[in-house]
Amino acid sequence: MAKPEVGIVMGSDSDWPDIKAAADTLDGFGVPCEARVISAHRTPEAAAEYARTASSRGLKVIVAAAGGAAHLAGVLAAHTTLPVIGIPVKGGAVNGLDSLLSTLQMPAGIPVATVTLGSAGPVNAAVLAVQMLAIGRPDLSKKLADHKESLKQKVASGNAKVQAELKKT
Amino acid sequence: MAKPEVGIVMGSDSDWPDIKAAADTLDGFGVPCEARVISAHRTPEAAAEYARTASSRGLKVIVAAAGGAAHLAGVLAAHTTLPVIGIPVKGGAVNGLDSLLSTLQMPAGIPVATVTLGSAGPVNAAVLAVQMLAIGRPDLSKKLADHKESLKQKVASGNAKVQAELKKT
Amino acid sequence: MAKPEVGIVMGSDSDWPDIKAAADTLDGFGVPCEARVISAHRTPEAAAEYARTASSRGLKVIVAAAGGAAHLAGVLAAHTTLPVIGIPVKGGAVNGLDSLLSTLQMPAGIPVATVTLGSAGPVNAAVLAVQMLAIGRPDLSKKLADHKESLKQKVASGNAKVQAELKKT
Amino acid sequence: MAKPEVGIVMGSDSDWPDIKAAADTLDGFGVPCEARVISAHRTPEAAAEYARTASSRGLKVIVAAAGGAAHLAGVLAAHTTLPVIGIPVKGGAVNGLDSLLSTLQMPAGIPVATVTLGSAGPVNAAVLAVQMLAIGRPDLSKKLADHKESLKQKVASGNAKVQAELKKT
Amino acid sequence: MAKPEVGIVMGSDSDWPDIKAAADTLDGFGVPCEARVISAHRTPEAAAEYARTASSRGLKVIVAAAGGAAHLAGVLAAHTTLPVIGIPVKGGAVNGLDSLLSTLQMPAGIPVATVTLGSAGPVNAAVLAVQMLAIGRPDLSKKLADHKESLKQKVASGNAKVQAELKKT
Amino acid sequence: MAKPEVGIVMGSDSDWPDIKAAADTLDGFGVPCEARVISAHRTPEAAAEYARTASSRGLKVIVAAAGGAAHLAGVLAAHTTLPVIGIPVKGGAVNGLDSLLSTLQMPAGIPVATVTLGSAGPVNAAVLAVQMLAIGRPDLSKKLADHKESLKQKVASGNAKVQAELKKT
Amino acid sequence: MAKPEVGIVMGSDSDWPDIKAAADTLDGFGVPCEARVISAHRTPEAAAEYARTASSRGLKVIVAAAGGAAHLAGVLAAHTTLPVIGIPVKGGAVNGLDSLLSTLQMPAGIPVATVTLGSAGPVNAAVLAVQMLAIGRPDLSKKLADHKESLKQKVASGNAKVQAELKKT
Amino acid sequence: MAKPEVGIVMGSDSDWPDIKAAADTLDGFGVPCEARVISAHRTPEAAAEYARTASSRGLKVIVAAAGGAAHLAGVLAAHTTLPVIGIPVKGGAVNGLDSLLSTLQMPAGIPVATVTLGSAGPVNAAVLAVQMLAIGRPDLSKKLADHKESLKQKVASGNAKVQAELKKT
Repeated sequence: MAKPEVGIVMGSDSDWPDIKAAADTLDGFGVPCEARVISAHRTPEAAAEYARTASSRGLKVIVAAAGGAAHLAGVLAAHTTLPVIGIPVKGGAVNGLDSLLSTLQMPAGIPVATVTLGSAGPVNAAVLAVQMLAIGRPDLSKKLADHKESLKQKVASGNAKVQAELKKT
Repeated sequence: MAKPEVGIVMGSDSDWPDIKAAADTLDGFGVPCEARVISAHRTPEAAAEYARTASSRGLKVIVAAAGGAAHLAGVLAAHTTLPVIGIPVKGGAVNGLDSLLSTLQMPAGIPVATVTLGSAGPVNAAVLAVQMLAIGRPDLSKKLADHKESLKQKVASGNAKVQAELKKT
Repeated sequence: MAKPEVGIVMGSDSDWPDIKAAADTLDGFGVPCEARVISAHRTPEAAAEYARTASSRGLKVIVAAAGGAAHLAGVLAAHTTLPVIGIPVKGGAVNGLDSLLSTLQMPAGIPVATVTLGSAGPVNAAVLAVQMLAIGRPDLSKKLADHKESLKQKVASGNAKVQAELKKT
Repeated sequence: MAKPEVGIVMGSDSDWPDIKAAADTLDGFGVPCEARVISAHRTPEAAAEYARTASSRGLKVIVAAAGGAAHLAGVLAAHTTLPVIGIPVKGGAVNGLDSLLSTLQMPAGIPVATVTLGSAGPVNAAVLAVQMLAIGRPDLSKKLADHKESLKQKVASGNAKVQAELKKT
Repeated sequence: MAKPEVGIVMGSDSDWPDIKAAADTLDGFGVPCEARVISAHRTPEAAAEYARTASSRGLKVIVAAAGGAAHLAGVLAAHTTLPVIGIPVKGGAVNGLDSLLSTLQMPAGIPVATVTLGSAGPVNAAVLAVQMLAIGRPDLSKKLADHKESLKQKVASGNAKVQAELKKT
Repeated sequence: MAKPEVGIVMGSDSDWPDIKAAADTLDGFGVPCEARVISAHRTPEAAAEYARTASSRGLKVIVAAAGGAAHLAGVLAAHTTLPVIGIPVKGGAVNGLDSLLSTLQMPAGIPVATVTLGSAGPVNAAVLAVQMLAIGRPDLSKKLADHKESLKQKVASGNAKVQAELKKT
Repeated sequence: MAKPEVGIVMGSDSDWPDIKAAADTLDGFGVPCEARVISAHRTPEAAAEYARTASSRGLKVIVAAAGGAAHLAGVLAAHTTLPVIGIPVKGGAVNGLDSLLSTLQMPAGIPVATVTLGSAGPVNAAVLAVQMLAIGRPDLSKKLADHKESLKQKVASGNAKVQAELKKT
Repeated sequence: MAKPEVGIVMGSDSDWPDIKAAADTLDGFGVPCEARVISAHRTPEAAAEYARTASSRGLKVIVAAAGGAAHLAGVLAAHTTLPVIGIPVKGGAVNGLDSLLSTLQMPAGIPVATVTLGSAGPVNAAVLAVQMLAIGRPDLSKKLADHKESLKQKVASGNAKVQAELKKT
């Protein structure tokens, strides 16, 4: 089994059904990843430890998903120099604005690369991680170009569907 | 010099001019405190260390002030069972809603006692800390009652001022 | 039966199914509490009376839950020097932002210790109340440490669940 | 001196420079009023007393102005059956959304007639009070019609000003 | 049949199931009312006509309910000197913030007495209308006092329910 | 078959069930239109091409519907001098505020004519397109006047329904 | 002097310094316009009259600018079938969100073509008006293409400025 | 002169005074960069061209800064498989929420790595770009570790300053 290059961390296992799309997307690109449930507030030492050892364990990018006062990505970023991608998880309160702002509004010097709030978030975190890894790896760049092409095909077939429906009326 | 019972932590020394009101208020109640600049993201180990040792060093309440993705109070709360009071510091972005939500929206089991966003925040953090300490300390309860009385006097003299202005017209 | 140390007040009995978690959590810590339905606007004298007599009846902390123009916590805080914890209850309008701001934005000198908007609120109010009571009571501090440990276990078992699901794929 | 028919209450004398426009507007309509500084949180008994005795002292409408967790209008409404008009005072935090929602979002049965957030608020509170008093008082209705006419004149002269500037170019 | 004293206007008949509570509440106070569907944007002449003739037809208060760019209350207020009460109707977009701000933010001189966004709105509009009519009508003041008393009873029975549930556990 | 005068573009075929109302409305006015699925981000060349060739293909107005970071209308407007009408599509995140602001907040010189967020959006986009086409085409102006009349009828029959229900009680 | 084709209406002459940019931009395109101060709430008859007679007086597009409960564009749209462009004017309260939503959220059948909130609004309203008029007028289309070209030049010279500054360092 | 590895693109030269901090930060890490003014809406072909050729010209990361309907980062991301970092530039309207949401809310498959809204944004974009480049480049990882260390020093000296001020009192 390949050594994980991307570490996916989520604040609760209840996030997994949504976050799984990140792992699946990475898998589709042939990028090995691992997934962990670690809480910034309930297991802060584990969070620090995970981030501190991430690089030496071979990880190159960390993806962190959390909701509410979503500190997870920021806490991980505080303990590593690897790029950290934050997925704001939409909970029930104020429509996810809490997760979004808690993930994004990092102080100068400690960025979190925040992606889409909502269902597109996990996929986009994965694609962004692949884009980072693709720097200097033409094989991944090629796959990203193919992926972009497949998105176009999807739009085209969506368009075909609408044209077909239009003809019926 | 008395041993600090309340630890005031702020994310940046630029917060001090505002946060000083918390220290001054505690001072007015005769409650010894200390103040530290510690950043959840820039000095995460110091933050963890501060919270972990707070109780053994004699602290009974922690007050934390931060802006933006305001994780400081939450990070401290993760490492201690002392009550942690959070002051959301209003920065330039989205009118302080980022600080407010990042401080308040803690997950189940790890509360942060959040106080007013805006200039009343530091004073209220201090009064809240005194209220906590006053549990079982009649001397502090007495001072809190006096403080409440002084607030009434302030309103009364404000009212007198308006009556005087009304008479002039 | 033990004399209540924490008074839980809610604006309507329709809040009880949610707020019950606060009572259950206090119960889990062995902290006796009482629960009352009192409305800041419909029974203002009862609210004032409750807060004014709280301390002499042996209460040490008040927890208040309300929605909309959530004045309950603030009204109670106006009539007591005990610490008042506010739980913003999310109603249908503007996603609970009304409850949150009405509870939190207290003027200088009269704090309300506001906790999480959403389902974590009642639990966090209870834990915060225990943290306040634990000042100078090592038995409660020990229970809080145990509680923190149990949260870690929960995260660990959540992680185990995700690892198991990952192996299946 | 005429007995006041409208009672203007504000949370702090610092609100007076803004709220004075309400008194001046009532004065322009020949409606006698009084103005008081009373705080819902700092002088809650005074607030309750004011509202409870308002009707017997001859007041017919209460106007209340407050900012932040603006409970003043609601607290007064809880203690009287007179109509209560609320002016949300815009403080520094979240652009006055806190005052607005705290004033407006009253529970079923205890309304607060909320007016414009911003500089138009005090004038509109006064005009609304006059409209209430004008029910069954043709003299006041006549003055309100004149006032409406004067607003039209103001728009007309504003238009004349713009036409003049247009001609210059 | 009694001549209507309050005119309830709504922008669409789809609002009626919610707004009916206003008519029922007025009915409970013995205040005769009428209800009309009039749209500020689809039937602007009818709106103007309704407001212009309201006073001469014996109406003393107008209640207007609308959603989205909720101009109805404002348009009516532009054409009458009667007090106009606005009920912001919560549609699907931005959680009703559009209705709320469109109803409330009237320019200086033309107030709309805005009441609660959400299910309490129609009841509160009716109670506010009764409060206005009660100026100088002791019979209505008496009914309002009774109504306040009934609200207290409701809270008391809610409290009894919670006490009963507490005993069971 | 008539040559399309209005081009409706949507970011995804999943928008079609909502956006179809725009096509149906145009159809009701006898204005020929076409509908395409084109994504600003997934098929950017197609978007540019569509807008660049729109005028030469006989289109006179473009209607663009998109959600989230809704760039579609803006991207089309960048490549044409035809008027572009933007329909913000409400997705799950922050209640559609993202779509609304992304569509509306265009820089000086490149406007997007933004219409209602919510279910009224597609109909309003179509009516606005017809209003634009009606400049100098009396036949369309006549139809718009008829349409306005039909809206009045709808309000009238809504009113009749409410009157009928009132009589029953 | 040419007969106005675009009517610019604003709620107050205090808007003129900002709205003048709309008139200047139309002037730059050689499109004759007029400007009027008319208030939806203070001069409602004038607003209705203006919109009702607009078409017969030769106007082809109406531009309306207003702040707060910005009903002006909607009120005009209610009385005409001409396209109405709304400019939300940013006042002091809630950052202009009130003007934006009051202008945009029109009910089905009565659209307002809303443009940018902020300083780009008046220019964009004018360009949009020209785009509407350009349907079937190649001379205006040509001018719009030139305008687009000039925007490109502006960006190019902005770029040159930055390159020059970069060289200095 | 070294070949640029990071391309900084901004929508207007007026952004440069703020965005310069990104270039300076990259410079401090010894990472060569270029800066361009390109507008998604005014120079869409230039934007497409820039992104399409970025990789072949040797760029490895693109940083894009824009305000309002901030489409720039998204438009660039549509035309490249390089990672695109978005800096939301805070304009005058709705406090920068428009820029933030327009940059962040990208559809599935086309991520934009969004960083802090506000003054920390440009620095964080640069640090994030360095973190991406540092994957597989130990020299840059070392510099990032040093940078993290320097942030700690800054906090420490901030703390020293506060301690000094505390001693004075």
